[in-house]
Amino acid sequence: MSATTSARHSERPGSIMSGEMAEQPAVLRRILTDGAPRIRETAARIAAKNPRFVLLTARGTSDNAALYAKYLLEIRLGLPCGLASMSTTTAYGAKPDLTDVLVITVSQSGGSPDLVASTRAAREAGAITLAVTNNPDSPLAAVSEFHLDILAGPERALPATKTYTASLLALYLFVEGLRGGDGAAADGLPDQAAGLLARQDEVRGLAARYRFAERMVITSRGYGYPTAKEAALKLMETSYIPALSYSGADLLHGPLAMVDNISPVIAVVTDGRGGEALQPVLDRLRGRGADLVVIGPKAQVEAASAGFELPTAGVAEEVQPILEIIPLQLLAYEVTIARGQDPDAPRALAKVTETR
Amino acid sequence: MSATTSARHSERPGSIMSGEMAEQPAVLRRILTDGAPRIRETAARIAAKNPRFVLLTARGTSDNAALYAKYLLEIRLGLPCGLASMSTTTAYGAKPDLTDVLVITVSQSGGSPDLVASTRAAREAGAITLAVTNNPDSPLAAVSEFHLDILAGPERALPATKTYTASLLALYLFVEGLRGGDGAAADGLPDQAAGLLARQDEVRGLAARYRFAERMVITSRGYGYPTAKEAALKLMETSYIPALSYSGADLLHGPLAMVDNISPVIAVVTDGRGGEALQPVLDRLRGRGADLVVIGPKAQVEAASAGFELPTAGVAEEVQPILEIIPLQLLAYEVTIARGQDPDAPRALAKVTETR
Repeated sequence: MSATTSARHSERPGSIMSGEMAEQPAVLRRILTDGAPRIRETAARIAAKNPRFVLLTARGTSDNAALYAKYLLEIRLGLPCGLASMSTTTAYGAKPDLTDVLVITVSQSGGSPDLVASTRAAREAGAITLAVTNNPDSPLAAVSEFHLDILAGPERALPATKTYTASLLALYLFVEGLRGGDGAAADGLPDQAAGLLARQDEVRGLAARYRFAERMVITSRGYGYPTAKEAALKLMETSYIPALSYSGADLLHGPLAMVDNISPVIAVVTDGRGGEALQPVLDRLRGRGADLVVIGPKAQVEAASAGFELPTAGVAEEVQPILEIIPLQLLAYEVTIARGQDPDAPRALAKVTETR
Repeated sequence: MSATTSARHSERPGSIMSGEMAEQPAVLRRILTDGAPRIRETAARIAAKNPRFVLLTARGTSDNAALYAKYLLEIRLGLPCGLASMSTTTAYGAKPDLTDVLVITVSQSGGSPDLVASTRAAREAGAITLAVTNNPDSPLAAVSEFHLDILAGPERALPATKTYTASLLALYLFVEGLRGGDGAAADGLPDQAAGLLARQDEVRGLAARYRFAERMVITSRGYGYPTAKEAALKLMETSYIPALSYSGADLLHGPLAMVDNISPVIAVVTDGRGGEALQPVLDRLRGRGADLVVIGPKAQVEAASAGFELPTAGVAEEVQPILEIIPLQLLAYEVTIARGQDPDAPRALAKVTETR
């Protein structure tokens, strides 16, 4: 835990984060053109090893990318998956038998010592190991049998944005590669992402709603759930508003008691089965008079207190998470600016967190 | 989602929850004497089937019990585990190949339709299915190949307390049974639990600290992490204070920005490797001047702002979670009473949440 408080500040608060968010269409395009062939080849080599089970290991933003991959692997491939509890290996020295297990470790820096240690231990225990990083020269990439480069370029703002969407796209193409698909559903993403980024003024309007918020609840279901978690993390690490994320079903098992007219709710509604499964939760929230902001299709936004409309027509549900986080990144940025803070350099955080 | 707002109120606010917390020593004793032989027998039958992976399915409090089981299974048995994302089955109709997979579903009521549906689907997909419930006549018990009865007796307060510790103990004995152990480390738990419950006055003192808190952060690592999550859920569903739980390592990957002198922190420090792995996080929190309350061994409490000392000498780390949640249940109760609310019947919640 040698991470130190960063003293770096940009000239204009938020200019680094803002610039990196704006790079997302170019990064997504780079992955589709330069990265995809290599990702497909890696996927084919791993598919040939016939993994029976997948364990995903990550922390922070990358953990939300890993959760997205879990949904893809379970739904599109029927592979049972788990998110690793890293301390079982690093603190307790567990030695599981990982024959036939694919261990995917996601880390933008590829530098966190505990991830390197747990990946090394997994490989020694017989796992097929795959690192997904933004740095092919990182210790994590070196220790893993396989590596996917997310090609996002250097990320300097402390809140990860372009490395998140880049990780999602790389993982999507990888899972499609495992199942022998062509991943064509991703082709429109760069242009669609650019369309969302152009609507920052709309997000600024929503941000006014949260300037004085003391807490927030963010909910979703299915493919949108990783988006809810990542949006909560982004809001917390930039604005310091306690943002609690729950799957819609879990929200009803306890935390709903906390939602009332002083806890605004953001719902991420995918256009597809996840959004359908969320409907009863939305009805319940509306019934309680909750302030409900929807990120989702037009009809969903119109039935809510306010929202940001996602043009989802013709966008497969499984790639919507790569788009729907963008207005929420912008929201974290705008809320933080509105509160007079600097989104680039949240207090207490360093870019590479060296947990052991 | 047919759950309706409960209108039930006890005569004295909190008397139902209070009574159920007080039953815990008797419930733990009942499991050790009446339940253990049957649990061991079930474990032996499942061990004979040689599961390679374990998937755990649950929601709310039971999800925290499932997470405890995940640590046990990974550390003590070396079995790779995952927590199921239920919507992949119930909303998306995923059909994973679950040959050699043990699917454990934890639910005090055994009545939630989505858990019944996902367990039925798992059994059809070839899984060994085990239900852990407080109701052997429940639909979940009926649909599962195997069943563990947690023998907690009827639970009427909306915040689950005795069913949580009962689930932990049943799962502990089950995992010990899988590995051919005798589970003797649990023998002292009923008396130790009684000792903790007798110290409610001490907890009342701590509760005063949080009467006006607008948010809280609860952290731990390893075996104590499920305790941190369950404590946060308990505090939220009774007092409505937004309580955010993080593993110590995850706390450093973002949410730390939110911890300052207005966000009190509770750390659950196990006496063992989990507690050791948490030390750098505690140092960091102390360095930031956080208000740090420790639930843990004497020396840890003395190094913090305040705390509740757990007598852990001679108590194996893997059973400490069954004890350390008790002062936190009492804390949720006392904070809620101090805020003039009724812990028995949080607004908006029903005892059996019928998510689909």
